Amino acid sequence: MPEKLKVGLIGYGFMGRTHSNALRAVSQFFDVPCKPELKLVCGRNGDAAAKFARRWGYASHTTDWKEVIGDPDVDLVVICVPNHLHAEIAIAAARAGKAILCEKPLALNTDQGREMVAAVEQAGVPNMVSFNYRRVPAVALAKALIGEGRLGRIFHYRANFLQDWTISPEVPQGGIGTWRLDARIAGSGVTGDLLAHCIDAATWHNGPITSVCGMTETFVKERRHAETDQVERVGIDDACTFLCRFENGSLGNFESTRYARGHKALYTFEINGEKASICWDLHDLHRLGWFDHGDEGKLRGWRSIHVTDNGGEHPYMNRWWVPGLQIGYAESFVHQIADFLVAMKSGEPCSPTFRDALETQKVCDAVLRSAGEYRWITVQGEDRKSTAG
Amino acid sequence: MPEKLKVGLIGYGFMGRTHSNALRAVSQFFDVPCKPELKLVCGRNGDAAAKFARRWGYASHTTDWKEVIGDPDVDLVVICVPNHLHAEIAIAAARAGKAILCEKPLALNTDQGREMVAAVEQAGVPNMVSFNYRRVPAVALAKALIGEGRLGRIFHYRANFLQDWTISPEVPQGGIGTWRLDARIAGSGVTGDLLAHCIDAATWHNGPITSVCGMTETFVKERRHAETDQVERVGIDDACTFLCRFENGSLGNFESTRYARGHKALYTFEINGEKASICWDLHDLHRLGWFDHGDEGKLRGWRSIHVTDNGGEHPYMNRWWVPGLQIGYAESFVHQIADFLVAMKSGEPCSPTFRDALETQKVCDAVLRSAGEYRWITVQGEDRKSTAG
Amino acid sequence: MPEKLKVGLIGYGFMGRTHSNALRAVSQFFDVPCKPELKLVCGRNGDAAAKFARRWGYASHTTDWKEVIGDPDVDLVVICVPNHLHAEIAIAAARAGKAILCEKPLALNTDQGREMVAAVEQAGVPNMVSFNYRRVPAVALAKALIGEGRLGRIFHYRANFLQDWTISPEVPQGGIGTWRLDARIAGSGVTGDLLAHCIDAATWHNGPITSVCGMTETFVKERRHAETDQVERVGIDDACTFLCRFENGSLGNFESTRYARGHKALYTFEINGEKASICWDLHDLHRLGWFDHGDEGKLRGWRSIHVTDNGGEHPYMNRWWVPGLQIGYAESFVHQIADFLVAMKSGEPCSPTFRDALETQKVCDAVLRSAGEYRWITVQGEDRKSTAG
Amino acid sequence: MPEKLKVGLIGYGFMGRTHSNALRAVSQFFDVPCKPELKLVCGRNGDAAAKFARRWGYASHTTDWKEVIGDPDVDLVVICVPNHLHAEIAIAAARAGKAILCEKPLALNTDQGREMVAAVEQAGVPNMVSFNYRRVPAVALAKALIGEGRLGRIFHYRANFLQDWTISPEVPQGGIGTWRLDARIAGSGVTGDLLAHCIDAATWHNGPITSVCGMTETFVKERRHAETDQVERVGIDDACTFLCRFENGSLGNFESTRYARGHKALYTFEINGEKASICWDLHDLHRLGWFDHGDEGKLRGWRSIHVTDNGGEHPYMNRWWVPGLQIGYAESFVHQIADFLVAMKSGEPCSPTFRDALETQKVCDAVLRSAGEYRWITVQGEDRKSTAG
Repeated sequence: MPEKLKVGLIGYGFMGRTHSNALRAVSQFFDVPCKPELKLVCGRNGDAAAKFARRWGYASHTTDWKEVIGDPDVDLVVICVPNHLHAEIAIAAARAGKAILCEKPLALNTDQGREMVAAVEQAGVPNMVSFNYRRVPAVALAKALIGEGRLGRIFHYRANFLQDWTISPEVPQGGIGTWRLDARIAGSGVTGDLLAHCIDAATWHNGPITSVCGMTETFVKERRHAETDQVERVGIDDACTFLCRFENGSLGNFESTRYARGHKALYTFEINGEKASICWDLHDLHRLGWFDHGDEGKLRGWRSIHVTDNGGEHPYMNRWWVPGLQIGYAESFVHQIADFLVAMKSGEPCSPTFRDALETQKVCDAVLRSAGEYRWITVQGEDRKSTAG
Repeated sequence: MPEKLKVGLIGYGFMGRTHSNALRAVSQFFDVPCKPELKLVCGRNGDAAAKFARRWGYASHTTDWKEVIGDPDVDLVVICVPNHLHAEIAIAAARAGKAILCEKPLALNTDQGREMVAAVEQAGVPNMVSFNYRRVPAVALAKALIGEGRLGRIFHYRANFLQDWTISPEVPQGGIGTWRLDARIAGSGVTGDLLAHCIDAATWHNGPITSVCGMTETFVKERRHAETDQVERVGIDDACTFLCRFENGSLGNFESTRYARGHKALYTFEINGEKASICWDLHDLHRLGWFDHGDEGKLRGWRSIHVTDNGGEHPYMNRWWVPGLQIGYAESFVHQIADFLVAMKSGEPCSPTFRDALETQKVCDAVLRSAGEYRWITVQGEDRKSTAG
Repeated sequence: MPEKLKVGLIGYGFMGRTHSNALRAVSQFFDVPCKPELKLVCGRNGDAAAKFARRWGYASHTTDWKEVIGDPDVDLVVICVPNHLHAEIAIAAARAGKAILCEKPLALNTDQGREMVAAVEQAGVPNMVSFNYRRVPAVALAKALIGEGRLGRIFHYRANFLQDWTISPEVPQGGIGTWRLDARIAGSGVTGDLLAHCIDAATWHNGPITSVCGMTETFVKERRHAETDQVERVGIDDACTFLCRFENGSLGNFESTRYARGHKALYTFEINGEKASICWDLHDLHRLGWFDHGDEGKLRGWRSIHVTDNGGEHPYMNRWWVPGLQIGYAESFVHQIADFLVAMKSGEPCSPTFRDALETQKVCDAVLRSAGEYRWITVQGEDRKSTAG
Repeated sequence: MPEKLKVGLIGYGFMGRTHSNALRAVSQFFDVPCKPELKLVCGRNGDAAAKFARRWGYASHTTDWKEVIGDPDVDLVVICVPNHLHAEIAIAAARAGKAILCEKPLALNTDQGREMVAAVEQAGVPNMVSFNYRRVPAVALAKALIGEGRLGRIFHYRANFLQDWTISPEVPQGGIGTWRLDARIAGSGVTGDLLAHCIDAATWHNGPITSVCGMTETFVKERRHAETDQVERVGIDDACTFLCRFENGSLGNFESTRYARGHKALYTFEINGEKASICWDLHDLHRLGWFDHGDEGKLRGWRSIHVTDNGGEHPYMNRWWVPGLQIGYAESFVHQIADFLVAMKSGEPCSPTFRDALETQKVCDAVLRSAGEYRWITVQGEDRKSTAG
């Protein structure tokens, strides 16, 4: 592994910014085996790509993603384009021998996802999907606590991801910033966009989901297309709720919507075990809720752990500031690239790999199919070979 | 209506205490048309009944509920016995021309419930079911806000009722204090005990539920019987989650369990409308969460309304103390009996009547059937003729 | 001690209601050695007194407090009149051999307080001052935790009592409901009304205060008199903040105001010890905040203890409902009278006695003098002989 | 102003990292008139300085701060050394014509501060003191709301800064990481370190403080020196509380300690105005508490504003991510340098300038003197000529 890792970024929207920020910051905060070098950024508008390159320090820019893949200097490709382009680009990148960090969800559907997994595994390239919330320190602490057996048998896993930004019928679909409302580009609505995060964390925390029963709704049936100005039928799910069972016998309840007035990105989860419970909330991501039944009776209560200890006990936090001073959303991407760089060096897979993300894709597909058919669906499990630590 | 209303209480457990307390307190705080007089209490243990009568001021006691029904002096019968006895007693009381306040759930099942509705309606007696949480001021304020149209179109109704008291396999079933774990006595587990409250409030707030899809689980499969000491199969649902659709097009998500470590009586609901959202939590029952999209942009945020204003603007609160001083659980029963006394005087039904509670019973039954059959179920609607204001 | 304790209530305002409610409820919830019987209520308006008597069940009423004192049947006198009348009535009641429960603050000033202490001690009558917040279960739990040595050396005691009801210059002084703004009747403003509560709890929790330095302000300088309609100079302190030192070496910081917009009765305290910290808030009085440095490092956090356990571990709570169901403000008065009845029976003093309350009065006087003279003042300690458990 | 601004950093500790991070990130997020170039870092250990330079991208390093001042290429000097060195370095930098960003507190005392102000004003160099919390979006929003007159007349300003890291007597004084406990180096304890932040924000929000009365305590009287291992008397204030009056007639109450078990960096403030109140808490720095008396009565409550709106309405936030995704501590330094760069370009002072910080220094000195003399002290006001916007 060279001291510098040359990075090609494809897509310069919101996610292009979060990854660029992380790539620039990681070596100041983490002892990574190599330092990312921003080689090339690709976006569909040349002027915008040039401006993005200047601002973020990419050495050059292009409007053709094949140039990124074809550049022999590029070691790592970061894919931040809309969902419908993930598969083609990732497969090409794998064939070109690039390491790949791909935005979530993995693909438009399970079939595409399988092809992507096959491609990276055949090529033997390092690969990871950006389910960044796993690497919020509080979320990682939850994983550690479960791993230490502190919850005992788990009874319930509950997660919500609530937003309110599409309530107005005036919000268009398609176009920059609103492609997530266009089923042709996004694949699905809240299921792939939001629930995918919840499912990724849930299966990481609590193991495989075996069966699901979902309900979806499209509250606003027609929207104007942002580019064509045509009024079109809306194809995405505005809201999706599902029940499920986990392999370990626990029950799951998941909900996502973009019609929950008052919530911007209220991703919450709660895990109830025999001995203890955990809860978390993205709106205050630096805190973890913890209830320990082992505490003395009269003093039992939910603790609000401010996950900012630099004594080395809170995941990732000893790299940042001093106790009491919180980090935010952006740092989860720094942690992600730090872990990926270390894994690349060691040759180990870095979870969530494409294969791990394929499991999440399968659950999403099963949920959507279940909602369409108004019945319970078994999640097909044959491809599972999780790398989750 | 006489100045004194003579009350016979059947059942002297936890619920017998809450109602007795309310009956004693109501006329000090509310301008009711008549003052309850505690005439007679019935319990299956004579000594305990005598002690209860002394403590709470009942003039006499008995171990035979038919004595209460048969007492010509008794105007109002309050039924606080385990669920399997509701129907027989209520029907007899109705035939004897008594006004009836019955603990929830209405009955063991919809069929029983129908008979009870028929009995009270044929007899023309005042009747009410004790879904007391409706009359927590914050919950009533939520109803008022919805009624004023402040939420606009409603997209989501979400409610949970989480407890943790039966996690230990050492908890027996049957017997005093644990009859709620015995399906023969309770009818169901969390569905009738806890979800019934959530469903009652939800349909009051948001209208009828038309279809449901549930999932239940019994985590502890066998328990010792408290009285016989025999180990028996557990017949109740330890946990129940269900998805549903409301007649108004909104989506529902309900969950209840006695296996959520850390929660004692965490009954919460959240309602998301186009213009505003509401949330509430029984663990801090004197507060209402309110988000108003009409607020100026930079100042929008969830408000925590301390529902303690005695200026007359918060339901029921002008009868209590001064602003800032909270009431608790017990006061909801005082409000309930106050409203019932006023309604009796006026001759109007007082919601939730037996008929209203029958709707909740139907949803409960549909949920349980849906869970057993792993499919969506339509809630039968033919008996509905709601009296909810 | 007779099975019935005959009670005469003097004053039928807000406090008359809280005590009457407690007197009526105590024997249902607590195993008290005798049952209060409501004999006689006194108020300055005869019709209102009659109405109050009817509503609350007093056998008779009067407009002359001397009748209450002179009634040989009356065992216990409860004094709920404005502050300027406490001394005269209490001294007369003591001389008549009555047990006395007096509303706080004890007196208009320390000199009056000393006379009152002398009177009850010479007469040997049971006496108590109604600093009811001590008997909120969470506040009593705090006391128990400190008593068990769980905090170690204490560094800080901090308390606030914030209200906002007198911000408008239109609020009059004098008159029913607003006599607390009239220095001639109330003695002082927030110091005697609100800080007295904070000081009582602080000295109970943390021992004597030895020196103080206060600052007061009267934001609205003139107000209309509610009865005479004359505009008069305002003599009370609208706000009072003070620093202090405790005998145990810890530092105190206290603040009270009626000009803190948004707070109705935000009485909060926080105690920081070497090993643990505690906080509490009257607006959510059923919760106690607890931080234990002895907790494992990565799991340390403030716990929110829902003080509703009926397992016997939370003070007073095993007499009420079931875990998770909260009590409110009114119950603190029930606990107070329950403890007083038990103490009367045993012949032990029931803290806070008049003597205990005199200590609080001294601190109040020292604070006001300090604020007036802009300097630190030593609290005179010679009368202390605390009965606090 | 050149397109690149060459920066020399003096001091490579915790603060050296926060500023370096901000200098590296600012031009990606803000449209600044020039891009900082990291020219030179100075630290007392050569190897550590070299390592720091490599990690953060400084072109070179030195152990002699005079080299930084003497380097003609350096445009901006950032001073992050312990407090006792601020004056000498800042004065030298001013004389060398450098722009200066100096860590807080300005100086060891007011006299030193005056010399520093004179130096930068005589040299006419841009100068700023790093009271970074002003530029937390929620804190800046508070300032904007006050500026718009939304609070009306202000009655109270209350601030605390509570920590617990020096409770153990084993914590040494002097040395890296613990120089803040050494009065010779730090000047004072919590007063200069923590209260200075509170005072800076308070005077920015609420105008000048005219008189103070403080109380200080040193709980641990002797500590081992980290470098000499000698046990020495502790000279700093471990805790400091003070009362004050503001020029606008409002009352202040400030407290700071390093002995508040359970708090790491609990900097909170609350401002009570006639029409509205505001509160904030560094432990959840992305939220602002807001109570508006103008809200409709029954819906009044404290709002929790999640200050993450990218619609341009929340200060600074339109430069970061999307609504609901929070920033943390580090971003406040990015905002600070962004504002400073813009101000440098325009030639306007950027508050808090050295002169502004001198006012805070005066209050700190007055508080310490007041505590030592146990009396109220008038803050000398003659140097005030605030630049605060």
